[in-house]
This record gives sequence, structure tokens and C-alpha cells, in this order.
Amino acid sequence: MTHPSELTARDAAKSIEAGTLTSEKLVRACIERIDEREADIHAWAYFNRDQAIEAARESDRTGNKGPLRGVPVGVKDIIDTYDMPTEYGSPIYKGNRPASDATCVSLTRRAGGLVMGKTATTEFAHQFPAKTRNPHNTNHTPGGSSSGSGAATAAHMVPLAFGTQTGGSTIRPAAFCGVVGYKPTYGEFGLKGVKENAQCCDTVGLHARSVDDIAFFRAALLGLDTAPLTAAPLSGLRVGFCRTQRWDQADAVTRQLLEDAAARLSENGARVSDFDMNDDITRIGNDARTAKSYELHRALLFELTYHFEQVSEMCREGRPKEGAAVTPDQYREALAGMARCREALALAMNDFDILITPSAPGEAPDSLASTGSSIFNDQWTALHVPCLTMPAFTGPRGLPIGLQVVGHHARDQHLLAAAQTVTQTLAAYRQAAE
Amino acid sequence: MTHPSELTARDAAKSIEAGTLTSEKLVRACIERIDEREADIHAWAYFNRDQAIEAARESDRTGNKGPLRGVPVGVKDIIDTYDMPTEYGSPIYKGNRPASDATCVSLTRRAGGLVMGKTATTEFAHQFPAKTRNPHNTNHTPGGSSSGSGAATAAHMVPLAFGTQTGGSTIRPAAFCGVVGYKPTYGEFGLKGVKENAQCCDTVGLHARSVDDIAFFRAALLGLDTAPLTAAPLSGLRVGFCRTQRWDQADAVTRQLLEDAAARLSENGARVSDFDMNDDITRIGNDARTAKSYELHRALLFELTYHFEQVSEMCREGRPKEGAAVTPDQYREALAGMARCREALALAMNDFDILITPSAPGEAPDSLASTGSSIFNDQWTALHVPCLTMPAFTGPRGLPIGLQVVGHHARDQHLLAAAQTVTQTLAAYRQAAE
Repeated sequence: MTHPSELTARDAAKSIEAGTLTSEKLVRACIERIDEREADIHAWAYFNRDQAIEAARESDRTGNKGPLRGVPVGVKDIIDTYDMPTEYGSPIYKGNRPASDATCVSLTRRAGGLVMGKTATTEFAHQFPAKTRNPHNTNHTPGGSSSGSGAATAAHMVPLAFGTQTGGSTIRPAAFCGVVGYKPTYGEFGLKGVKENAQCCDTVGLHARSVDDIAFFRAALLGLDTAPLTAAPLSGLRVGFCRTQRWDQADAVTRQLLEDAAARLSENGARVSDFDMNDDITRIGNDARTAKSYELHRALLFELTYHFEQVSEMCREGRPKEGAAVTPDQYREALAGMARCREALALAMNDFDILITPSAPGEAPDSLASTGSSIFNDQWTALHVPCLTMPAFTGPRGLPIGLQVVGHHARDQHLLAAAQTVTQTLAAYRQAAE
Repeated sequence: MTHPSELTARDAAKSIEAGTLTSEKLVRACIERIDEREADIHAWAYFNRDQAIEAARESDRTGNKGPLRGVPVGVKDIIDTYDMPTEYGSPIYKGNRPASDATCVSLTRRAGGLVMGKTATTEFAHQFPAKTRNPHNTNHTPGGSSSGSGAATAAHMVPLAFGTQTGGSTIRPAAFCGVVGYKPTYGEFGLKGVKENAQCCDTVGLHARSVDDIAFFRAALLGLDTAPLTAAPLSGLRVGFCRTQRWDQADAVTRQLLEDAAARLSENGARVSDFDMNDDITRIGNDARTAKSYELHRALLFELTYHFEQVSEMCREGRPKEGAAVTPDQYREALAGMARCREALALAMNDFDILITPSAPGEAPDSLASTGSSIFNDQWTALHVPCLTMPAFTGPRGLPIGLQVVGHHARDQHLLAAAQTVTQTLAAYRQAAE
């Protein structure tokens, strides 16, 4: 019998509903994984086994009827929980107990999910790394800023977790840890109770170990039908191969794997053609830098005023400092520019169902001092379109490499259905090769 | 000599800078007003005289060089302060102490302003009234939801205060209390630390007793030049007289006063013509109702789940309940519809510098059970354009009636300069009549 920590969230929920599994058994199975690996991986900012087991027992006792039926969820520690500390990855907030839950946590509880604990985050979801290590090789970064969520999901400590993304903070750790990461269309799960970074880009994202589990988790949160995801037909699917203007910053292996993936999709009936990121789209880079810096500075004013010495130098000397010099008029112009770039992307995407593009420049870097680069993420975040990374390849160092699919604004369900067919197609090739 | 509580914020700051006034004297003068009238008006959710005086002494001692130089500011109690309770107008949050300041509070402190205390708000800035009464007649509502900020500013308890507006929550109490209320372009002061209601409309607003003080406060917060506001030339100013589609819901006195104001501006050289709120603009009403209900429901999920009995029936049975039935797709469509209405407004406003329109249907209603109607406010809030109400007339019951001016998106400084010339023009007529 499959160890319950290996189950997808959907299968676990189904088993609990059928009475062949309990939330408590599932949570205890996940705790076994935590016991085995947490000392090496450091995925958790807060984990209390008694609290987790008690929540599971309560769920079993009360006959939890929500679609998640007592499945445990990891919550990134920049997201407020009323019953667990929320420290934002900063010593300033040691022991901080918010008065209420973030909206996405409320949505989880409404759907019958349990909060397993708080997953480690970089300081304020900026650059200064969390203590977390990559489960595939603990000398490598797990990516960030949602480091703990990516690592905990990959290490089977939870089947589902929340991340957030302002640049590449959900997609990158998912790609580096070999799980599925989903950054929805801007605004999908709401931001109440999420430590603000840059309001114009901040997005709550999800981690799971399959595309279908992302669809399941998303539907449960949004109160939609949680029926299994139906893969979109690959035949005729209009796939734009988007190398982006940063293609030469991806490593050779990643570039080749993306080319191979495009060829395989084409061989199987997809209509693959090049997607050109024209200047009207890519100029969002400069505008986003201006607008985000301005917002980052204002969002951290309290900490910079009252707790300057406890803010990392990496953070103090970074974007917030840059943002202090941006004027309100420059900020407004940048926001307007970003809106125009979104229109340009919508126009350019008219002839495509989805885009495929790298999730990251390569495997997780051999370092714990940096969480890696978001150059293949930040423009999609600023463009507000939904993105998903799936673990598609294994790199020369034996670490996962992701493939990123990008969809149309507010058409997240279509993106997930297309991602399902892409992941199935690529999996068939991997199996054939093994 | 003028009692310091009568001074504008600008004059008070100037006197402190010149050494003819201290922050402590100013704060003590405002406390005199609180002592005289708070038992009747109930403007404050939290006020601690020792804390306020100590902050003022500290400001005097350290030679505060910020533009606000120790001027006290009232902060609506749905806005977080790390050193004062923040109760959101709800018994659920009795004694709640946030871990940090809201962005607008950080901006205030950076500018040298002092937080005088927390002003009373309706429950969660929704409809359930605060305990506050109108300083002009305590049998009448002060308006809401920023009830305490409007009343405290009007009663000279503070020269400046923060409100917020999701429908009409800054403009309406300002109009009813006879002060100047300013709802900036969406996004101006940031929302971090402000209890979320409907993210697509939530806006931090300002109260003061003169248009110039609004300009002074705004510039200080945004780090702009705080030079005195120069009135725009009235000659040739293109003024759109916007009766709105709800004109017949304004009372006869308000309608006549608005007609008179339009005539006076015209007589003095303004180019006044009718502004038609066409259907492409007004359909924002339905879309905003859908999107806001959806967001309101999600923002209150925590309270509705864990503290249902402590949420007022007025709130439970209102918009949040309606929002529970809105689907994510309907929400997305509503947001897209709202964006189109904003474009339609921008197009229609091309031939105008500002619009004039009622601030409210009439004087403050003779009731404390409701804070009045936002029918002349909510569409401007949803349209994201800046608005300002100025006390322009006195109604038949001896209560203030405001005139509202509306400007172009992100051109707030232009709106303030035009508002200054409008207010000066109307004041000249009032003086001539007296």
C-alpha cells in the first residue's frame, strides 16, 4: 500500500471520504517525513506536531465535508495565521501572532484543509535566504522566496502548500525542488493578510506534486467544481515557444531541453511556433522595476524606521533603497506603462493558447547564499498572466529542471488543462527513455 | 491671538518652525477641544492624553524637521498603528495591537506628524454606525464610515485626519461635518495595514479644514514640495457640471445650490457646460457591486467563520452575503467591465479640467441609525479618479452642504489647484451675502 505521504491531495481526500484513510493517519505520515528530513532541509519556520495532530483528529471527529477533507497544507510564513506565529522571515517579528487569518488561509479552512505549519520564507519574501535546503541535494538552494513550501512539498512533508510571487518566488522554488508551482492571474486568491511587498505584482501561488493537484487545490479554494482535470487535446493546441529576450542567460542544457520539448509537442500534434516577446511587451521590465521599488520602499517603511538594524543589509541596500528615489509621478507613469504592456501581450497572444518558456536559467545553483535568478519569471508576474512550472527534466547534476507554461489573463482553468496535456506528453517520452 | 486649535496645519507647522508655537502647546490646545466636546461627539475610538503629550514633547525636544513638525493627526481605527490599539470598529478586535504601522501612518511619522489617537469608524468601515455624532448637531449622523475623522477635524480636535473610502466613506463624513475631504486617485497612499474591504476600490483619504491643508498634508506624506497651493486660474477653466444619473435623488436645496455654484463659476470666467454620465460610464455601478461584494465576502471570511455572533446583523446580511454567491468568473468579468468604464470616463473627460457634482444628497440625516447614502460617491471611487468635497453652503437645517469636484486619474495636484479656485470663488459670494 502506498505510504499516505506519497498520495496526491486528491487521492488522499478521496480516501478520507471513503473511510480508508483518516486525516490523522495522513498527517502522521507527513510527520514521519518531517522527522526524517527536517533536520537537513529546514523547510519549516513553525511546526507543532501536537497542534497538527489535534487539528487532524478534530477534522476526523467532526466529519469534515469540505473538498480538502483534512488534507494538510503548508503556509508560507509571510501569510498570517491566527493560531500560529507569523514571522515574515525576520527577527523583528519573532513570536508575532496575527489577530486573524489571511484570506487564502480562510479559503483553505472553509474548504476543509488543515494548516500543517508555517513554511520558511526568505526575509520578507525578498532576497535574504531562508535556512531551507534543496531536498534533492542539500548543498543547493531550494530557490526562494517560497523556499520552505517548495522543499516541504518535494519532500512529501505536505501534499500542498502556499507560496507567494512578486518576481519569481513561487515558480523558481517549485522548479528547483521538482514540484509543480502555479502563479495564478493577479488577484486570484486575494492578498489580505499577506505581508505586502509590491502591491502591483504580489500574487499568492500554490505548490503541489502534480498539475491535477494544483487544479484540485485551486478549485477547492475558489469554491469551484473539484472534478479531476481533463487534459486539453494536444492536437491543434497552439503553443508559442517563447525563448524571451533572455534566452542566452539560460544554460545550454536548459535551452536544449526546451527545444526538445517543443519538438515533442509538435511531433504529437501541437501547432508550435515561435512567440516573439516584442518591445511593447518587454518594456514592462523597466516600468515594473520603478513601480515595484517604489512600493517595496513604502511597504518596508515601518521596519526601516523602527528596526533598521534588524533588517538585513541585502534588503536595506536593495530595491527598497532604490525606491526611495522614485517620485509619485514616476510611479504613476510606470503603472500606466505596465498596463500598456499587458495589452500588448494580450494582442500578441491572440494566436496562441499557451506559451512555453524556461522556468529558471538552469538547475538550482550550488549555493545557499542566494536563491537564484528570477529573470524567467518577473515579467510574467508583472504582466499578471497565469504561469505554471512542471518538473519536466533532470539536469546534469541530477537536479530537476522545470518547464514553464504561460496562459491568457484570467483563463487559468484553460492553462491548467493545457499544462496537463503538456506534462502527460513529456512524461510519456521520459518513460520511454527509461 | 488665534487659539492654536484654530490654526491650519500649515500655519501650525510654520509657527512651530519659527519657534512661536510648540507641538506640545498645539496638542494641548487640541486636547482642550476634546475635553470640551468628546462626551457629546464621541469622535475617538482611542485617545490617551499622556501618550499624545509625550509624543509632542519628544517632537519638541528632538527638533522635528519633518514638514509636519509635530502637528497631530487623527487616524481612522481601521488603520494599523503599532503603538495604539486598532479595533476596526468591532468587538472582535477589542484591544488588538498590530505588530506594525500601516504605510500611511509610516508616511505620517516620516513627515514629522504625530498620531493623536484613533478615530471612530463604523464596523469594519461598513454600514453599522460608530458612536460618533455630528459636531454641528449631535442628533444628526456625522456620516461614515470615517465618522470620527470627519467629526474630530470639524470640532478642531485635530487639524488633519485619515479616512478611507470604498464607497463614500471619506467624502460623505467630510460633507456632513463641514470639512474638506479628499479621496485621491486609487493607490496613492498604499493600503498596507488598512483593514481590507474591497481591494478594487479601497482608498486612503484625508480630512482637513481647508483645501490648502489637504495639499500640504498630501505633499508632506508623498515627500513632495509643500509650498502653498496656487489656485488654478478660473478664467477658461473647463468645468463639467455633472448632475449624474441620480440627480433626482438629491434634495431640492442641494440641486439649487449646485445650479447656483455652476452659475457663479461661469459668471467669473469658468467655461461651464453639462457633463453627461453616459451609459458606458454608469454601467460601472453593476460591475462594482459584483466585484466589491465578492471581495467583501472574502475579506470577512475569518470573522464570519470564527466570530459570527460578534459581526453585526447589518454586516452579515449585507454585501458580504451577496458576495458569497458571486463566482470567480463573474468577478473577473466585473473587474474587466470596471476597467472599460474607466476608459470611457477618461474619454468623456477629455474636454474638461474638472467636474462639479453633489457630495451627498443633502444635509446630514436626522438620525444616528444610518450614516447616510453614498450614491454620489461610489461610482467615482470605482472609477479610481480623485475627488474632493469642500464645505460650500449651509442647508435649511443649519448643517453644512458640500460641493464635490472630480479630477482626472492621477492628476491629483491639478484637481487640488482647481478646487482651490472653486472654493475661493464660492467663499467670495458667501462673504458678500453675509
